[in-house]
Amino acid sequence: MTETLTETSPQTVDAIVLAAAGAFRPWAATPAADRARILSAGADALDAAHDELVQLAVAESHLTEGRLSGELARTTFQLRLLGEEMLRGDAYDARIDTADPHWPMGVPRPDLRRVKVPVGPVLVFAGSNFPFAFSVAGGDTASALAAGCPVVVKAHPGHPELSRRTAAILADALTAAGAPTGTLGLIEGQDAGVRALRHPRIAAAAFTGSISGGRFLFDVASQREVPIPFYGELGSTNPVFVTPEAAAEDPDLAQGFLDSLTAGVGQFCTKPGLLVLPRGSKLLGRLSEARLPGPAPMLNPRIRDGFGARLRELSSHADVQTLAGADDPTDSQLDAAPTLLRAGVRDVLTCPDLQEECFGPAALVVEYDDPKDMVALAETLAGQLTATVWGTPESDVADLVAVLTERAGRLLWNQWPTGVSVTHAQQHGGPYPATTAPGTTSVGTAAIERFLRPVAFQNFPQHLLPEALRDENPLGLHQRRD
Amino acid sequence: MTETLTETSPQTVDAIVLAAAGAFRPWAATPAADRARILSAGADALDAAHDELVQLAVAESHLTEGRLSGELARTTFQLRLLGEEMLRGDAYDARIDTADPHWPMGVPRPDLRRVKVPVGPVLVFAGSNFPFAFSVAGGDTASALAAGCPVVVKAHPGHPELSRRTAAILADALTAAGAPTGTLGLIEGQDAGVRALRHPRIAAAAFTGSISGGRFLFDVASQREVPIPFYGELGSTNPVFVTPEAAAEDPDLAQGFLDSLTAGVGQFCTKPGLLVLPRGSKLLGRLSEARLPGPAPMLNPRIRDGFGARLRELSSHADVQTLAGADDPTDSQLDAAPTLLRAGVRDVLTCPDLQEECFGPAALVVEYDDPKDMVALAETLAGQLTATVWGTPESDVADLVAVLTERAGRLLWNQWPTGVSVTHAQQHGGPYPATTAPGTTSVGTAAIERFLRPVAFQNFPQHLLPEALRDENPLGLHQRRD
Repeated sequence: MTETLTETSPQTVDAIVLAAAGAFRPWAATPAADRARILSAGADALDAAHDELVQLAVAESHLTEGRLSGELARTTFQLRLLGEEMLRGDAYDARIDTADPHWPMGVPRPDLRRVKVPVGPVLVFAGSNFPFAFSVAGGDTASALAAGCPVVVKAHPGHPELSRRTAAILADALTAAGAPTGTLGLIEGQDAGVRALRHPRIAAAAFTGSISGGRFLFDVASQREVPIPFYGELGSTNPVFVTPEAAAEDPDLAQGFLDSLTAGVGQFCTKPGLLVLPRGSKLLGRLSEARLPGPAPMLNPRIRDGFGARLRELSSHADVQTLAGADDPTDSQLDAAPTLLRAGVRDVLTCPDLQEECFGPAALVVEYDDPKDMVALAETLAGQLTATVWGTPESDVADLVAVLTERAGRLLWNQWPTGVSVTHAQQHGGPYPATTAPGTTSVGTAAIERFLRPVAFQNFPQHLLPEALRDENPLGLHQRRD
Repeated sequence: MTETLTETSPQTVDAIVLAAAGAFRPWAATPAADRARILSAGADALDAAHDELVQLAVAESHLTEGRLSGELARTTFQLRLLGEEMLRGDAYDARIDTADPHWPMGVPRPDLRRVKVPVGPVLVFAGSNFPFAFSVAGGDTASALAAGCPVVVKAHPGHPELSRRTAAILADALTAAGAPTGTLGLIEGQDAGVRALRHPRIAAAAFTGSISGGRFLFDVASQREVPIPFYGELGSTNPVFVTPEAAAEDPDLAQGFLDSLTAGVGQFCTKPGLLVLPRGSKLLGRLSEARLPGPAPMLNPRIRDGFGARLRELSSHADVQTLAGADDPTDSQLDAAPTLLRAGVRDVLTCPDLQEECFGPAALVVEYDDPKDMVALAETLAGQLTATVWGTPESDVADLVAVLTERAGRLLWNQWPTGVSVTHAQQHGGPYPATTAPGTTSVGTAAIERFLRPVAFQNFPQHLLPEALRDENPLGLHQRRD
């Protein structure tokens, strides 16, 4: 299938943003139970179109049918889960401080009640590597809709037809179930995305993609006359630290690592790109002898080009050798072969650019002589989505874990970072450049918080308060009192 | 007293930031109960120095002793309250999702546990108008310290000696009680502040002050190689809407408004700067006949200059008349006389710059013919810290309240916006330009959240987990499970 790039005209961009702005009040005022039902109807419609959507996704993304089918299931699960999360009520963060003449501040405390409300229309920049889960109907869209915010999606050019069909099916299902017209809109093209990002009616934006693209858009959002929050999930190397004990004991480590590295042809934002292990360990031997999977197609020629260029850059370092695979052996426009490079920990400490992300099925294996070098290396890391430690109960890793806690949003013990579970306790976001807003997550129910802001009501009569703050508590929320 | 402006040298700025960075790990690792005890010791030391500090504040700020004494009490209350808030545990937002092989996402859910951790050293730009509560030992400092973040304060030049003494007393008390050296540092001068804001070891910044100053610093923070969150509380007009019923019925409204307007010589960020009332109402008559307080000294000549300039700008509008007081009648370097201007609601709708803040004891009284004009005016408002409605049980204000909820961080009913109570449900922050990060508050216990970020731990053994996430729950926190 040939990509059909189109660019939404400025007039149409404005009309779609204004339609979202028009949908804001009715959608925000729709009770959470109705919003959950409507999101669930949207999920049902996408599930019903499973075969059509997955075939479109295979054709446009070159990912496997099995992977894409699972990703669609994850995506519709996410729409339902996030809708239900508002019903659970914690996201409202309802707080009630009743009037207190003896408040120890020294002056009487008025009746103050605080609740989170939706921020306004949200612009979502879709990612390429998850055509469902981080695209039109993905986590950013689901969390904004659940929060009560209409969404304008800027489609990713890597899967234009899939984007259009997903948007049409979801938007139709939402309005058929009762959402106001304009609750979900789609625009296409880079200029259209920037125009929408600068539109005064857009209240927040979310993004999944590269550091350069994300930083460009973050700057646009920050330099507006009225700056808006920009929730960008950019890039990550996702280092894995293997203790001497784990390297010696666990025979499955090599295969587990290769499976995680090559899942989705290495195009996961949580792909382990740096494997830190003891010099001369059995694990190193197993990796050098491992049978790597054959070449597989990447998402599109641009991403394939970027992979080849970054791989050649890494390979050209004087201190970097090829451990397995080859440094960009194929001349295909799409196919990429898994590749392992190797370097010493000193080389990486002195050349921090060796730590930068290589998007695709390649990793740098870093050998250390002294386990303390793992801590030294961790101290030099940029912000990461994930950091992983493999150890045994005997491993002395407290210092390493402490440093990694400062550097990453999610820490794993004896598991692999790919495959991000959508749960209440998930955290997908870390210090910059992993994320532009490190206090937030783009996966899991806490992702909703990005699209809410608090409002306090002082001395208000019950009938004018939001339901979440009334004494009778008609929504049955957890209200934090006094 | 003559202001003694000094500029901390670049070398000293770097040394103070590095001292804060050095204090980060031990301070973050200090148990919350100990941090609360240490903050309380700091509060005690400031209370013990009450007379000295208040006299310094009177001399440098020209505010009254009574006001400053109350403000110091509020400040030390705040240090204690925020320390205790971490003990209550909600700020950790601890979430535990145990492993679930049947998680409906379609793949097994791993054991995932999420908790908030301190972000790193915080830079606080002190405000001028609250020499205690928004300065060296104020809410930003208290919330960052409570979160586990060392603080570097950039002193406000309006009260340099008070800043130095407050910092010395607080820093000494904190270290004497067990805080690591470097937990609180002080720098002086604009260049020093910008240098610290650009320092790679600063993880977040907070600010209270003008729109122009705050926006400049927001841009510096956003344009760093590694951008950091900038929590700026900038400016606000704090509109007050009076329904026809309230204007007719309440004889105390005029005096209440004037008291709020002139409190602190109009130098509160929540000063009501726009009073919207029915044309020809008794309230208007009472205001035009009211005896305004006499001239009083503002904080410093620069602020007095700005007040005069803005007042002349407003008065020069063709549609603006003087209702009471005079348009900048004094030629004092410091004293300012309370002034009420008047305009019609159509004038304000067509000239949005009439809504912009005038920092000082002046307000614009806006007359409407139709109560619906209040909603129309509310629709045009920029982001506000507060918005107030005066009404009776009969008043039809649902639409007005709905619009104001989109525009402001705190809504008040039949009370005045000045005097911001420090509580759990307080919200001091609204859409830009009221705040650069509208999802946050700079007053109340929720202010701590600005200086925390979430980290998830996947499949971790109990002994390597933070205490907040262990099954045995040694901190006794609320843990949200599954």
